[in-house]
Parts: sequence; structure tokens; C-alpha cells
Amino acid sequence: MFSMKYQIRFTHTDPAGQVFFPRYFEMLQAAVEEWFTCALGRKYSDLVFEDRLGTPTAAIQCTFVKPSRLGDELSIAVKLEHIGNSSFRLRFLGSVDGDPRLEAVSTLVFATLVGGKPLPIPPEIRARMEAYRKAD
Amino acid sequence: MFSMKYQIRFTHTDPAGQVFFPRYFEMLQAAVEEWFTCALGRKYSDLVFEDRLGTPTAAIQCTFVKPSRLGDELSIAVKLEHIGNSSFRLRFLGSVDGDPRLEAVSTLVFATLVGGKPLPIPPEIRARMEAYRKAD
Amino acid sequence: MFSMKYQIRFTHTDPAGQVFFPRYFEMLQAAVEEWFTCALGRKYSDLVFEDRLGTPTAAIQCTFVKPSRLGDELSIAVKLEHIGNSSFRLRFLGSVDGDPRLEAVSTLVFATLVGGKPLPIPPEIRARMEAYRKAD
Amino acid sequence: MFSMKYQIRFTHTDPAGQVFFPRYFEMLQAAVEEWFTCALGRKYSDLVFEDRLGTPTAAIQCTFVKPSRLGDELSIAVKLEHIGNSSFRLRFLGSVDGDPRLEAVSTLVFATLVGGKPLPIPPEIRARMEAYRKAD
Repeated sequence: MFSMKYQIRFTHTDPAGQVFFPRYFEMLQAAVEEWFTCALGRKYSDLVFEDRLGTPTAAIQCTFVKPSRLGDELSIAVKLEHIGNSSFRLRFLGSVDGDPRLEAVSTLVFATLVGGKPLPIPPEIRARMEAYRKAD
Repeated sequence: MFSMKYQIRFTHTDPAGQVFFPRYFEMLQAAVEEWFTCALGRKYSDLVFEDRLGTPTAAIQCTFVKPSRLGDELSIAVKLEHIGNSSFRLRFLGSVDGDPRLEAVSTLVFATLVGGKPLPIPPEIRARMEAYRKAD
Repeated sequence: MFSMKYQIRFTHTDPAGQVFFPRYFEMLQAAVEEWFTCALGRKYSDLVFEDRLGTPTAAIQCTFVKPSRLGDELSIAVKLEHIGNSSFRLRFLGSVDGDPRLEAVSTLVFATLVGGKPLPIPPEIRARMEAYRKAD
Repeated sequence: MFSMKYQIRFTHTDPAGQVFFPRYFEMLQAAVEEWFTCALGRKYSDLVFEDRLGTPTAAIQCTFVKPSRLGDELSIAVKLEHIGNSSFRLRFLGSVDGDPRLEAVSTLVFATLVGGKPLPIPPEIRARMEAYRKAD
């Protein structure tokens, strides 16, 4: 399963010295971008600038199991749970040295970058997604 | 019902000119702070600095109904759905000129600011919460 | 002189309970947007979406006089110091109840939104800028 | 010279698809943390949690030479320009594949995490700083 490591920095933390929860969602988005680039073989920035596509998040839910703090190295694993027509669903497991910190499920949609019109998942990306899910 | 207005700024937007979804969660947290201050009569910063309390988010789910963009004035209404022992549940309805943009449900927990040990909801805050829920 | 009030929230603060300095720059950008809208009479979002213009920051310097913390109401005053051909220079004075917190000077440039090609300041905006500077 | 690589992500970009300038300051802070950890041999989070120290930024100036965009890999080099009693001055050079993007100079101060009282630079950190400057 693809996973991405993320260093918890001052930037992410709140007056309790712990990650302020909206910052986690920035990390999840980074994990999506890295997953496209590394696991699906399509550089996310090419998707945006060349294909003029975006993958806006339609819905997300997240449980914060335990706080993370400055200096932690958060690992975010990405599981592909569902491939729809224009949408797909990812599950994220965040942990520090194997200790669970958060679990999230997100539905993302392929859409035109400007205008946000939903589009079928491009065939070559769909094929890569299916291969990723099978390998998992 | 308490609601807070939020101006959508450059800061919140992405390459599509729309709110990048993690920014919404910053706005929801701001709505919680304002709700404590205005609707419950306890300044949120006093809670933090005087009482050394925090209200970390234990879980949140959010559906992004329609994108908001730069220049929109987002209104976030706060509904108190449940009062537990140390936790409480809020529903947020985000709209622009009455047009729905997002709906979120969040579980927050009273906890020591440092250490994050859950604590019973302080009695005077509980009383205010019950009054708020009744008035709704 | 135009000024904008800004509530310091959890979002802005760091493990010391004080504003993390990059957040101030988000506030300065918000002050620029509000200044265009209120003081120059051109809604900033119309500039972006209708005129397809941006005002990227070319250079900025900032002195952080004293920390601000959660619960403070920061007032940011905007002084127009120079009007060039395509650039202009603003000075920002940030204070809480008259107590100085930061002072910044920023050079902004009118440019095409996509591509970032510098453009002369549009005549009607220049006229408004000159009126603003005269009134100051 | 120590340098840190930073992947430009959706999170950092604005409606022009370019880095929104306040995000650069978050990256500079990350570079400071990494520089402490890797170049000075003192993990930044230990400084905060064990020594209860912070290094608030007293002043910063930054020139944005050229925009960076989604997909760029930004390299930030850290030059130590001055070591004072409780303060020190860093110069940051940001580039993408050798192409300059920003240049910044920042004055940071050693201070108590809570209260923000300036403190002399701890002797072992000063020694490491001097070694770093000499090696440069």
C-alpha cells in the first residue's frame, strides 16, 4: 500500500503543541497528490496544468484517534476503496511509528479544473487505479 | 440559531479559484470560537488562557455541496445536536445567500489544554449549552 | 486611513499561544483585498474574475514588534506610500488597542492573473489611489 | 550549505496556480526547524518540548524573484549571516532547478516558549552555529 511520510512542524501545531486538525486535511491532500504521482504514475501537477483537471473532495470524514505533536513523523497510508464513474473513494490511515493517529475516508471527483464539471475518470487512470486496488 | 459570516479571500482559494477544502475547517473552528464567545457567553480565549481548557475535535464529517469562491460571503450556522458528558456534537450549515455550500457534523471534547485529558463539561457551560439547545 | 479589524483565532496561533508569523501575511493580504473593495471602490474578486488581474507581492518586509495572542483584536491600517507604473507600495501598521504589534512594507504589482505579465495600473484604479493618498 | 527540498503542492497555490506568498514563510520556518535538527544537531522539537525554548522571528524581508507553481521542487538554502547575543540572522535562497525564486533575510531570537523573554543563545548551540558559519 502506498504511504507518505510527513514531518510534523511548528506550522501544523496549536497552543497545545499538537496538530491543529485542519492541517491534517492539507496533509491528506498532499498524500493524494503523491499517490497520483507515485502510485498511479500520473504527476498530479500535469493533471492540473496539462489536462486542466481537478479532483475536488466531495465529502470527507475523519476520526482523530490520538493527537500528533511537533517532531512526530506521521505516515499516511492510502487505500483505494471504490472506483465509480467519475468519483473514487480513498481511506487514509495516519500513524506515528505504527501508533494510529487518524483515520479518514474521502470521496473525490474528477472534474474540469475551471467550472468543476464532473467527468468520467480518464481510462488510463482508471486502469492504473484498478491495478493499484488489485495489488493491495 | 447562531451564525457567523466569513468573507472568502485569496487565502482560502485554490488554482480553480475556489475554497480549498481544508480552509473550511479553519472557518468551522472560528465558528466554534465565536459560538462560545457570543452564544454561550464564555470568551473562547479565556477558556484557553484562564481555564487552560481546549475543545479538540474528535471526529468530523463534511459534505461539500457546491464550491464557494473568492468574494463570496459564507454564512456558517451552528446547531447544537448533542450534549454528552465531556463531549458535544455540532452541526454546521454553510451557505452563500441561502445557497447551501457545505454541511458538517463535528464531535468536540472538553479536555485539559496540555495533556488533552478529557474533562466533564464545566457546569456553567453545560447550562448555557442546554439553554442554547432549548432556544433553537 | 483605511483599517481592518481581525480577530486572532486558534487557527493563527502556535505552541506559545501566539500568532505564528506566516499567518500575519495572510491577514495583510486580506487587508489588501478589503482596501481595494472599500477604499478604492473596486471589489477585489471582480478584479480577479472579471478583469483577470492579480496583484502579486513582489517584496515584503515586516517587523514583529510584540506578539499577538488568541482573543486579541488586531487592527491593520493601510497607508499607500508610492504609486508606480505597474507597482505600488503599501505600509501596514498592526496594533491591538493602539499597542503596536507589527509594521510591514509591501510592494505589489498589477499583473495578468495567468502568466503574471506586469501591466500598468488601470487608470480608474490609479485615480482612486491618488485620491486615497491625497486624503490621507 | 544546508538546504531543504520542498514539494510545491495544491495547498500552497492560489487562483493563478502559483505559490501564495504567505505559504513561503511556512516553508522558511520548516527550513529553520530542519536546519536546527540536521545542521546544528539539536532536534527542533526537543528545543520546544525539553528546553521550553522558541525562536520567534523578530523581522523578515523577502523578495519574490519569480513565481513557483504546483509540481515545482523548491530548494531552500540556509546561510547563517550573523550570530548575536540572543538573536541570529539567516539568509534563505529559494530556487527551482537552480532558477532563483525568492531571497529572504530573517532575524530570529531565542526566547522562553511561554512569555517570550529573550535568552542568550545556549552555549552548545552557539558553538554549533559558529562551526556552521565557518564551514560555509
